[in-house]
Amino acid sequence: MKRGFYIGRFQPYHEGHQYVLEQIAKEVDEIVIGIGSAEISHTLDNPFTAGERVLMITRSLAGLSCPFYVIPIEDIKRNALWVSHVLSMTPPFDLCYSSNPLVVRLFTEAGVPVKSPAMYERRTRSGTEIRKRMLNGKVWKRLVPAPVVDVLDEIDGVARLRQIARDDGEA
Amino acid sequence: MKRGFYIGRFQPYHEGHQYVLEQIAKEVDEIVIGIGSAEISHTLDNPFTAGERVLMITRSLAGLSCPFYVIPIEDIKRNALWVSHVLSMTPPFDLCYSSNPLVVRLFTEAGVPVKSPAMYERRTRSGTEIRKRMLNGKVWKRLVPAPVVDVLDEIDGVARLRQIARDDGEA
Amino acid sequence: MKRGFYIGRFQPYHEGHQYVLEQIAKEVDEIVIGIGSAEISHTLDNPFTAGERVLMITRSLAGLSCPFYVIPIEDIKRNALWVSHVLSMTPPFDLCYSSNPLVVRLFTEAGVPVKSPAMYERRTRSGTEIRKRMLNGKVWKRLVPAPVVDVLDEIDGVARLRQIARDDGEA
Amino acid sequence: MKRGFYIGRFQPYHEGHQYVLEQIAKEVDEIVIGIGSAEISHTLDNPFTAGERVLMITRSLAGLSCPFYVIPIEDIKRNALWVSHVLSMTPPFDLCYSSNPLVVRLFTEAGVPVKSPAMYERRTRSGTEIRKRMLNGKVWKRLVPAPVVDVLDEIDGVARLRQIARDDGEA
Amino acid sequence: MKRGFYIGRFQPYHEGHQYVLEQIAKEVDEIVIGIGSAEISHTLDNPFTAGERVLMITRSLAGLSCPFYVIPIEDIKRNALWVSHVLSMTPPFDLCYSSNPLVVRLFTEAGVPVKSPAMYERRTRSGTEIRKRMLNGKVWKRLVPAPVVDVLDEIDGVARLRQIARDDGEA
Amino acid sequence: MKRGFYIGRFQPYHEGHQYVLEQIAKEVDEIVIGIGSAEISHTLDNPFTAGERVLMITRSLAGLSCPFYVIPIEDIKRNALWVSHVLSMTPPFDLCYSSNPLVVRLFTEAGVPVKSPAMYERRTRSGTEIRKRMLNGKVWKRLVPAPVVDVLDEIDGVARLRQIARDDGEA
Repeated sequence: MKRGFYIGRFQPYHEGHQYVLEQIAKEVDEIVIGIGSAEISHTLDNPFTAGERVLMITRSLAGLSCPFYVIPIEDIKRNALWVSHVLSMTPPFDLCYSSNPLVVRLFTEAGVPVKSPAMYERRTRSGTEIRKRMLNGKVWKRLVPAPVVDVLDEIDGVARLRQIARDDGEA
Repeated sequence: MKRGFYIGRFQPYHEGHQYVLEQIAKEVDEIVIGIGSAEISHTLDNPFTAGERVLMITRSLAGLSCPFYVIPIEDIKRNALWVSHVLSMTPPFDLCYSSNPLVVRLFTEAGVPVKSPAMYERRTRSGTEIRKRMLNGKVWKRLVPAPVVDVLDEIDGVARLRQIARDDGEA
Repeated sequence: MKRGFYIGRFQPYHEGHQYVLEQIAKEVDEIVIGIGSAEISHTLDNPFTAGERVLMITRSLAGLSCPFYVIPIEDIKRNALWVSHVLSMTPPFDLCYSSNPLVVRLFTEAGVPVKSPAMYERRTRSGTEIRKRMLNGKVWKRLVPAPVVDVLDEIDGVARLRQIARDDGEA
Repeated sequence: MKRGFYIGRFQPYHEGHQYVLEQIAKEVDEIVIGIGSAEISHTLDNPFTAGERVLMITRSLAGLSCPFYVIPIEDIKRNALWVSHVLSMTPPFDLCYSSNPLVVRLFTEAGVPVKSPAMYERRTRSGTEIRKRMLNGKVWKRLVPAPVVDVLDEIDGVARLRQIARDDGEA
Repeated sequence: MKRGFYIGRFQPYHEGHQYVLEQIAKEVDEIVIGIGSAEISHTLDNPFTAGERVLMITRSLAGLSCPFYVIPIEDIKRNALWVSHVLSMTPPFDLCYSSNPLVVRLFTEAGVPVKSPAMYERRTRSGTEIRKRMLNGKVWKRLVPAPVVDVLDEIDGVARLRQIARDDGEA
Repeated sequence: MKRGFYIGRFQPYHEGHQYVLEQIAKEVDEIVIGIGSAEISHTLDNPFTAGERVLMITRSLAGLSCPFYVIPIEDIKRNALWVSHVLSMTPPFDLCYSSNPLVVRLFTEAGVPVKSPAMYERRTRSGTEIRKRMLNGKVWKRLVPAPVVDVLDEIDGVARLRQIARDDGEA
């Protein structure tokens, strides 16, 4: 039994994540998916709650060939403790898949094997790009799995992002 | 689509939880299972990590007729905010199943419908009772689903509980 | 201009507090009333929210001869920082009225003058006693100012206390 | 009895706030004024403590036609919990007055009615503008109610802001 | 270069600690001494601040044959993260000396070697016992190194403990 | 007995710090050195843990003429409480040496004497400058005491800084 770990903020979950997870599914028996910054929502960079992200991920992966766990992980705000924090919240895993330099460094220093997954259409399959398109009224739906569009409709997600983006000129 | 919420500390997950969840599975389309006090472990009342509890629950419910989510929920330590905290970490649900008076009160004040599930062999299907038996070397394995015994074996759970129970006489 | 500080948890506000504040009103120009453990509610020892306690106090003191401020103060959980915390949340004051040994010690170590107010019918004008009477269905309304009874009616306070006092036998 | 809620950081309290509160006073029976980011002080954007801000507001509103509460509210740092946090610290209110897009969104999602108050001389009646003028030695006293000038004198507020604005070139 | 770690709350530092550290000094090249619950003070079980405890320890060990570090360590309140927390606050060490069952368990699970030091006059060389004697006016000075008596005199430590032990009958 | 306090983040400890401490050593009997932002590590501005910084400082000051304490101090994130926090973690001191405007202001408001130490080669003896040189492969070793080079070698410090500086293009 080999278990792999993959973490992201999934704001929102998109085709790039989906592609990576489909590749990982070919290499391990089970996948543990961590939702980072779980306690943050309703901000420009993190508009959606952990629960909403659980829903996006679970529905999009309904047909995945390998079993997976979706685990919200709150920020611990201390890098030196972060790996222990992740390990305490997740079923034990054998390796971590990540391209994030800090994540790679922290797991490596902790002695957990790390593998960088192949990416897919990096420029557009990106949370930053998709949130920008949502704000500017540009095309974004084809960059995310169809179930994500449904979840965002249900929670009125694009309107939320646009409203909190308004500036009232005060600081 | 009707979703039900059930929360516990699952220290450890036992036949009483299993029975309740099997009953709930007959009444809803999906179950959201919250693991309370997720950040606490290695204490007499809370010996197991959230990740270990995720594993116990997921394996025990492998044959459940209805889809379920298992979500670790860290303590927020402010009762007046706890329902919002739970709601932010979970997919939206329609009703909460609980017999805990505080949980019942908090969800009721927040306007979420609450239902008290039927219990099963209350006296022995109890985390307190099972931890006591583990400590005293009494029979406990038949009080939990078989996969929980496997998980506890893998993580050396009973030895952990016994070691932290030792008293070194200092305070 | 002489300002005095008085702090309590006010769970609930009662005739003992009212008596003390009426005495203090004779000695200072303005009173700063701190509501301690402001973030705690819905527990046996702290059933009411800070906002509910603000209401009880403000209404009960409507006829007080001297101006007052009612300030919720969250626990800081570090005694050595507590006086600084209080000072940062309140308008500046000249002396503190308190009989609580820890409060007396902390303000004294910080160089703030402390005075112990005369008490009134200590045995029954006590939060512990009043909550016990609420739980046991005994007479309590004559131990609190009339506006407190109104507030507790509005928020269904006694029912809340009784519900969270129920025991479901689990730990 | 109709109660309205208004929140700001009041760094410092100025004529713009005063104007808005005078308008709200015509529409409700009582006003609850929340002081946001209550725990923050001695920074460029938040130079004054909650207690200092309580004083500025209370003195400036001494002649207001309608009763008001001034409540320091510490940041909870989780947007999804913020409305519950505010509600737990304040007497119950019927509607919220705010032009801040995030505040509007959060109360709206929580089902609390929100009304955007008319503004007054937006460009100069602004905390950002007033702090900038204090730093640069420009005219600012006519932008705040007279009692605010007194409070800032008492606490040596402008000197504090200028001192923490100095740069020692290190990061 | 071999470095050993020893942790305690040192409320107060006593002859038992001194004896253990003198034994450890014979076995390692440097000692890292962690002061646990560093942020807690002014309570019955933890009367003294971290800074006061730094002073007691450093002065008592002035003649120790081996170099040592004294490091205040704040509680992290999550057992699964505690070893990482300790490791981030201390110079790297090769083994931990402890008789505390939880400390032993946590370091062992983290793969850090643990050794139980020989104790010295366990019954009286105990923080609990010494605080009890201070409260009851019994002999305690001969149970601690002479410099600890000096520090406690300077900070008025016994009077502090006695004052916070007074009961004002309220909860 | 005169004790002086000096605080920095020491990311890393460099010749500028060393120079200042050698000057302070001529003016006081003991020095208390506070390591600020102790809980932060593995970031671009704060790459090293508190324990690593304890090691850099202690080894570099091995030959200092006056005794010193090295105390990690976690951020308290509330400026109004920061001085009390520092005082609770450190042995009592008589004056603070600092050029940081906020530190100067906070200690001054708290009534603690502050003295600005003479600086040494400000432009290059700077944490910001040294971290930049580490990142860009420029000369930095002669800007820090020799023992700091050794510590950074042992902990693979420059490689850590470079790895976390990599950009994966996602936010």
